[in-house]
Amino acid sequence: MADQRIWTVYLSGEIHTDWRDQITKGVEEAGLPVELVSPVTDHASSDDCGADILGAEDSSFWHDHKGAKVNAMRTRTLLESADIAVIRFGDKYKQWNAAFDAGFAAAQSIPYVTLHDPALNHALKEVDGAAMAVAEQPEQVVRLLRYVIRGEL
Amino acid sequence: MADQRIWTVYLSGEIHTDWRDQITKGVEEAGLPVELVSPVTDHASSDDCGADILGAEDSSFWHDHKGAKVNAMRTRTLLESADIAVIRFGDKYKQWNAAFDAGFAAAQSIPYVTLHDPALNHALKEVDGAAMAVAEQPEQVVRLLRYVIRGEL
Amino acid sequence: MADQRIWTVYLSGEIHTDWRDQITKGVEEAGLPVELVSPVTDHASSDDCGADILGAEDSSFWHDHKGAKVNAMRTRTLLESADIAVIRFGDKYKQWNAAFDAGFAAAQSIPYVTLHDPALNHALKEVDGAAMAVAEQPEQVVRLLRYVIRGEL
Amino acid sequence: MADQRIWTVYLSGEIHTDWRDQITKGVEEAGLPVELVSPVTDHASSDDCGADILGAEDSSFWHDHKGAKVNAMRTRTLLESADIAVIRFGDKYKQWNAAFDAGFAAAQSIPYVTLHDPALNHALKEVDGAAMAVAEQPEQVVRLLRYVIRGEL
Amino acid sequence: MADQRIWTVYLSGEIHTDWRDQITKGVEEAGLPVELVSPVTDHASSDDCGADILGAEDSSFWHDHKGAKVNAMRTRTLLESADIAVIRFGDKYKQWNAAFDAGFAAAQSIPYVTLHDPALNHALKEVDGAAMAVAEQPEQVVRLLRYVIRGEL
Amino acid sequence: MADQRIWTVYLSGEIHTDWRDQITKGVEEAGLPVELVSPVTDHASSDDCGADILGAEDSSFWHDHKGAKVNAMRTRTLLESADIAVIRFGDKYKQWNAAFDAGFAAAQSIPYVTLHDPALNHALKEVDGAAMAVAEQPEQVVRLLRYVIRGEL
Amino acid sequence: MADQRIWTVYLSGEIHTDWRDQITKGVEEAGLPVELVSPVTDHASSDDCGADILGAEDSSFWHDHKGAKVNAMRTRTLLESADIAVIRFGDKYKQWNAAFDAGFAAAQSIPYVTLHDPALNHALKEVDGAAMAVAEQPEQVVRLLRYVIRGEL
Amino acid sequence: MADQRIWTVYLSGEIHTDWRDQITKGVEEAGLPVELVSPVTDHASSDDCGADILGAEDSSFWHDHKGAKVNAMRTRTLLESADIAVIRFGDKYKQWNAAFDAGFAAAQSIPYVTLHDPALNHALKEVDGAAMAVAEQPEQVVRLLRYVIRGEL
Repeated sequence: MADQRIWTVYLSGEIHTDWRDQITKGVEEAGLPVELVSPVTDHASSDDCGADILGAEDSSFWHDHKGAKVNAMRTRTLLESADIAVIRFGDKYKQWNAAFDAGFAAAQSIPYVTLHDPALNHALKEVDGAAMAVAEQPEQVVRLLRYVIRGEL
Repeated sequence: MADQRIWTVYLSGEIHTDWRDQITKGVEEAGLPVELVSPVTDHASSDDCGADILGAEDSSFWHDHKGAKVNAMRTRTLLESADIAVIRFGDKYKQWNAAFDAGFAAAQSIPYVTLHDPALNHALKEVDGAAMAVAEQPEQVVRLLRYVIRGEL
Repeated sequence: MADQRIWTVYLSGEIHTDWRDQITKGVEEAGLPVELVSPVTDHASSDDCGADILGAEDSSFWHDHKGAKVNAMRTRTLLESADIAVIRFGDKYKQWNAAFDAGFAAAQSIPYVTLHDPALNHALKEVDGAAMAVAEQPEQVVRLLRYVIRGEL
Repeated sequence: MADQRIWTVYLSGEIHTDWRDQITKGVEEAGLPVELVSPVTDHASSDDCGADILGAEDSSFWHDHKGAKVNAMRTRTLLESADIAVIRFGDKYKQWNAAFDAGFAAAQSIPYVTLHDPALNHALKEVDGAAMAVAEQPEQVVRLLRYVIRGEL
Repeated sequence: MADQRIWTVYLSGEIHTDWRDQITKGVEEAGLPVELVSPVTDHASSDDCGADILGAEDSSFWHDHKGAKVNAMRTRTLLESADIAVIRFGDKYKQWNAAFDAGFAAAQSIPYVTLHDPALNHALKEVDGAAMAVAEQPEQVVRLLRYVIRGEL
Repeated sequence: MADQRIWTVYLSGEIHTDWRDQITKGVEEAGLPVELVSPVTDHASSDDCGADILGAEDSSFWHDHKGAKVNAMRTRTLLESADIAVIRFGDKYKQWNAAFDAGFAAAQSIPYVTLHDPALNHALKEVDGAAMAVAEQPEQVVRLLRYVIRGEL
Repeated sequence: MADQRIWTVYLSGEIHTDWRDQITKGVEEAGLPVELVSPVTDHASSDDCGADILGAEDSSFWHDHKGAKVNAMRTRTLLESADIAVIRFGDKYKQWNAAFDAGFAAAQSIPYVTLHDPALNHALKEVDGAAMAVAEQPEQVVRLLRYVIRGEL
Repeated sequence: MADQRIWTVYLSGEIHTDWRDQITKGVEEAGLPVELVSPVTDHASSDDCGADILGAEDSSFWHDHKGAKVNAMRTRTLLESADIAVIRFGDKYKQWNAAFDAGFAAAQSIPYVTLHDPALNHALKEVDGAAMAVAEQPEQVVRLLRYVIRGEL
């Protein structure tokens, strides 16, 4: 009986470059049985979802807080059910939420790959230390998935 | 590969208004990949199921006890396998079972949304404090599901 | 979206009467979305499987031991993935394995129903005490499943 | 080697009558090896702790929210490490937090005793249904602890 | 730094012979760092505790049920925190509660030793199959503990 | 409703003989509902995957380390979701990774079968001691699966 | 019996200001039963521990990697056994390891308090969203601990 | 309040050289708050404990089997409660039990250090890959413990 497993891969982190698109395209071209899932990547929606749906807040802190929790219903659920996570750090913004996701994955024994420029190596050493692979380019992530799923180099 | 996840949403609490119908209708109209599950909402069946199936009791306490456990086989199973729970408090009755479900969900790290009138805010502050969102209207719940699942505001 | 959950029900215990057949027939007649699973109920196979497959033993203890472990690969796997277990005690034999399964289910928070003659009530009080329902007849189990799954009395 | 276990008992719920004092006194008189723990029972402190320590809020909802979370650091920690919980429902106030604690305890397999007037039996049937004992008077709780710990009736 | 671990050993099952005393004496004579814990072994107290503390019942089933749950607060707590369990089956009574405890221990990965006459081997094969040792005499249990704890044969 | 469970079986260990093929053929001939999963069994790919995808290393230790972690993303995920594992020890190489997988499976309560020559019995006694069956030939594994899944000897 | 619980509090994050000393001093002055634990806060030791003990590396990546894992033996162990964590973000450095610890704590249901300047609120909204309290000053953390442990405002 | 944690360290594997003594001596000289625990290291006792206590076996397989399970009561209990494990591979014998312990520790998220000659690096790459440190000499293990516990290089 052929292996019919669908692998769920959670793509966490940076939302300002097209790394998710590159991985999506690579996965499709390779025909991998992968379901890619992500947080909401529209910046404005992600920031405003809580206040927009549940009511506006005077304080920016509670505006953010409501949004963060609404987003967490999505991200936590998808991350927890992922087989593998990819954690992307870009060169802009601090992306503490990406590091948070990495810690969450580590605590749940969900294997993850980090994806970032080598210039960030030292600052990310704890996050990389718990990763199963440290990649620099989206195509390396695609190759990792192809190897992990199909054994093809 | 398109996301084909079906989200299971458990609707806990009040059984005397049509809030479940409103959410069901909203979910259907939005075409969301959501499976809505609920406790048995027929009040008489819910009260009498234990004695009806397993034998009558002289004592009302054991009549209730048998029924509560039979219902728990349903509610516990459905709640445990839900991705998200909605906990509804109405203005009549005490709905301790809804608060019980909220505590159960919190302990199992199942994210939940509370749905109640703001007049109950202070009395429900611990239950709301562990919630991921506090809504007043069923349509807000539908909007939350749409955003959480599809990222659409 | 209609509820499409399949409920897995593990039928543990006595293998000398037709209670499993009665439940199977009742579940089919009611058209319930239930998958019934059981240990191997052929007594001779169940006793001899270990020695038959893995090699004969001089000692009856190790003959039994090998068989018990081979059977456990089936029973443990099926019980662990069940939504509900039914634990049947007959009037012959001690069926300690049924009580073992009940303890196992309790420890894993799998709800279970016991099925036995009231004459055994006192001797089974600890096992019944952790059960969600205590039934005397297979048709009560079918009614419980119908209520738990469909809410129909 | 004599049993030197200290049993931790969490006393959840109503804060307006002296039931905790009665249990404390009973436990001391019986010389039981019990450590009783509780939420903060000073009503004003419990309501205001968040805003008082972390900064005032204009909105009563967020005032409550901050307080609820600060209290939860205490209650969740103490409840999770308890051997047994006692869940008290009084005749005033809704005490949804008590039912929340019961659900939390049930999900964590922490055995609990409910303590309430029989007039509440029907409304509390789900919460009682998952309890290991349903008591009406604090002295019954003390007797339960004495029996559970020392085997003395 | 010398090993200062205290091993907790739960003694489950038969209450009509002096096997617990023999183990207790053996453990004391060997000076082992063992804390022995047990269910309440006074038969009458164990049967009546629920009704005696919480109120009499007309029905023998509920009389038993209340007692079983009160006892479970003790037994479940002690068993869950044990390092090792000893499960004793005597030649009288069915001791389904002992088999229940064995299943509970197995599900929680608590290693257990069974203690019974070889005449029961076939009937207990599933319970023995999940045991770490099968003993016939209490002194063997003491020797096991001495070896497991101190490495002394 | 017929049992439609697909059993996932993880084949761990030796990659230099055709034991996996034999089991695959046997499972197919028997028409068993089994999905067989394995680590990558191409030796060179398995050794070089890390460096090949993520970049070459000067040190053989880190070359191995990168590869081991990339492989672990596959093996850990497949093993964790298996119903049963088969752990094969050949007569060449040390196959510590097979023993590692056995320990991993034991800790996660995944039942496993060992498959090896009796000459290795003494050296493998701890690994065999936690196994549910010890087989010598691949066809015995097929027979075990047929019995466990279908109850057929 | 007085509450004799010792609360373990893990202090994660920034190592360049004296916030740990302030909390330590405040806890001591208040006489709180708190054991404060931390990562190694000597920057050079923390960076070099792996290579210093286990051997030098030519590559800075592996130098960091070895150190990160050695430090993780300390931090993971202490964080996992903490009752409460405090996660500090300073204004210099990215402190992704602090966000990693927050995610780890969240996944393990360990309540945590964040401690940072309000200027970081927006960037930290996901990390704050899962926190039980958001503080700006070390003395607020001390007051939180005093309230959580002793109920004193 | 000073850190009063006692760290439990499990020393697994080879029993034919004095590496345990070297670590013990080093830990004592450094005055570390460490409790070192180990399997029974007397080879003959370890092999014969099962048969010696529970009765002789004609078959060497069952002789070994009984012994392996009795030893597992010790090793499993001590390993599960360890903060850190050290897994030692010598140059003689296959020490599959050491690799088994490593897999067990990895599955339970217990950090471990391997201790072996670099000549074994390639064969142990999967076991090393999941380790937090790879050491060659017992004194490195002592230094690791001193750093992890006290932060001293």
